[in-house]
Amino acid sequence: MYNAKAYSAAGATSPLSSTSIARRDPTEHDVQIEILFCGVCHSDLHQVRNEWSGVMPTVYPCVPGHEIVGRVTRVGSAVTKFRAGDLAAVGCMVDSDGTCPECKAGLEQFCPNLTLTYNFPDKHTGKVTYGGYSDSIVVDQRFVLRVPSNLDLAGTAPLLCAGITTYSPMRHWGVSKGKKVGVVGLGGLGHMAVKFAHALGAHVVVFSTSPSKKDDALRLGADEVVISRDAGEMSKHAGSFDFILDAVSADHDINAYIGLLRRDGNLTLVGAPEKPLALSAFGLIMGRRSLSGSIIGGIAETQEMLDFCGQHKITSDVEVIPIQKVNEAYDRLLKSDVKYRFSIDMASLKSE
Amino acid sequence: MYNAKAYSAAGATSPLSSTSIARRDPTEHDVQIEILFCGVCHSDLHQVRNEWSGVMPTVYPCVPGHEIVGRVTRVGSAVTKFRAGDLAAVGCMVDSDGTCPECKAGLEQFCPNLTLTYNFPDKHTGKVTYGGYSDSIVVDQRFVLRVPSNLDLAGTAPLLCAGITTYSPMRHWGVSKGKKVGVVGLGGLGHMAVKFAHALGAHVVVFSTSPSKKDDALRLGADEVVISRDAGEMSKHAGSFDFILDAVSADHDINAYIGLLRRDGNLTLVGAPEKPLALSAFGLIMGRRSLSGSIIGGIAETQEMLDFCGQHKITSDVEVIPIQKVNEAYDRLLKSDVKYRFSIDMASLKSE
Repeated sequence: MYNAKAYSAAGATSPLSSTSIARRDPTEHDVQIEILFCGVCHSDLHQVRNEWSGVMPTVYPCVPGHEIVGRVTRVGSAVTKFRAGDLAAVGCMVDSDGTCPECKAGLEQFCPNLTLTYNFPDKHTGKVTYGGYSDSIVVDQRFVLRVPSNLDLAGTAPLLCAGITTYSPMRHWGVSKGKKVGVVGLGGLGHMAVKFAHALGAHVVVFSTSPSKKDDALRLGADEVVISRDAGEMSKHAGSFDFILDAVSADHDINAYIGLLRRDGNLTLVGAPEKPLALSAFGLIMGRRSLSGSIIGGIAETQEMLDFCGQHKITSDVEVIPIQKVNEAYDRLLKSDVKYRFSIDMASLKSE
Repeated sequence: MYNAKAYSAAGATSPLSSTSIARRDPTEHDVQIEILFCGVCHSDLHQVRNEWSGVMPTVYPCVPGHEIVGRVTRVGSAVTKFRAGDLAAVGCMVDSDGTCPECKAGLEQFCPNLTLTYNFPDKHTGKVTYGGYSDSIVVDQRFVLRVPSNLDLAGTAPLLCAGITTYSPMRHWGVSKGKKVGVVGLGGLGHMAVKFAHALGAHVVVFSTSPSKKDDALRLGADEVVISRDAGEMSKHAGSFDFILDAVSADHDINAYIGLLRRDGNLTLVGAPEKPLALSAFGLIMGRRSLSGSIIGGIAETQEMLDFCGQHKITSDVEVIPIQKVNEAYDRLLKSDVKYRFSIDMASLKSE
């Protein structure tokens, strides 16, 4: 074991602050990574504040962060994919059983024996896993991704969660040239969805409650922006969408969007509103439409997404912050006051 | 034009009674059919009582019936598919534009210029279409189905709506040998779903609120029956279904069934509860599950379904009634007091 610098929360109402955590020395299959940037995901905030106590209670101290980009500092003797000096990335998962049907299908995110990157039982230490708000991390090479050399690293970090979360359902539901794709909610996830749908060749329509987001949506790659409160504008698009990605976690009228799908169209939820959605069966029955959900993506697809980003020069739009500003960033996140993701420059941790 | 005997309702609160209606003489593409049996669908009752006044107000007199089986009596000069004496069937549709993308895809049920079998503007007469509670009907040959010669005709009639409504989504979502399929609601639709899923080679589980239906479910082809009110029994099946067909129109907890789907599993709604369903996004997100709807099927698939029924000797379980008992049958339908579909023997109309 060795000591790593990190930022952790001591309790649900405590701010994140500087601390030291024990990391394992790399075993033969492990990669040790010096973390350069870590994105700030809304999940980090939920977990730190124990807002998921029903399904995933927080163990303190909690070190969040699952949008990790860095440079390899050391590798175990059996590691073949990486060597010291390589760029590397880690997302929401750090281990799985590798033998179940889900793992064999390349869908490790559904493995019943998955290990999440933070606040999850750690079979190596007997404690919990610690995430990317830290100067280093040690991860089995199977869960370490290669990073294209041409991308800005601060903007690459959020690809590991916000990126794959939006890329995966688009690939699964066949977003491609000639398809009409809607994106509901232009935040951390939504702005990535716009970039991917555009790069995949689709006609991209952003739905927004606010006309003020129009210019930004067009800049990100949208072909049209529809003000979702304007029933007349909405009805012009009735029955015309092949796919809609809904990244809104607030309560909203899902039926209004289902009605915009064409026959066999799909709407995928990647945000999970707290309250149940009020769903009219009629909208699904007419047109054989479907409503589904999606969560991150498997390791192979995450690598595919990163390679796609390299080819298309796609990164997240980020506001880079020092780790010392992370509590302030959380407050701003609650007000959606970020375009579109905070990325922590981990060099700032050296001074702690 | 010629006069046909029929049963019609004069208003939303009137019983059905004997009447005479004008039918067109067959044009060159038409098939005239002597109706032998007509199934009683819950939609007939909704339409007769004007319970869909918001979307499809009833025009009186209304002659319902869209599960029609009979014998061809006359054909137009251009008719190639049928000749006098052939068995023939008509379902929920009698015309479509034939040129739109939906028609070209063989999905006439989604054609924007569809003509339904009853209570729909009739381009030939300028009035509305009259359904199968009648001694004859005249339909364009494109919407007339061939009937396998080995099937009981009374039990064949319900295949035209209850049959295709359950067969189509099973084919669309890949029900086949080795798949685990659930059926929610053992009524007119549900009992057909059990027969089809069994014949397609699936492991079939019927969900019922009542243990009294168990023997019947097993007789129809179910491998297991789960009492849906028993949380312990339900949880044993968590994450295990490839496909669930939900034929319940009453308000019910859809999330309990979504949780039983495996990764990429689908639940299709063929009943449309009046109240919106309360849907938890979480159940869809975990496991990339999908929820969809389906309505009848295209003409080619309806023919495929009838041929499949011929091969597998599948018909609906029916209680045959004379037309004079149809009002009583409606009352019993509201109490689910039928196993599993009423089929009207249209010979009874001769005495009117």
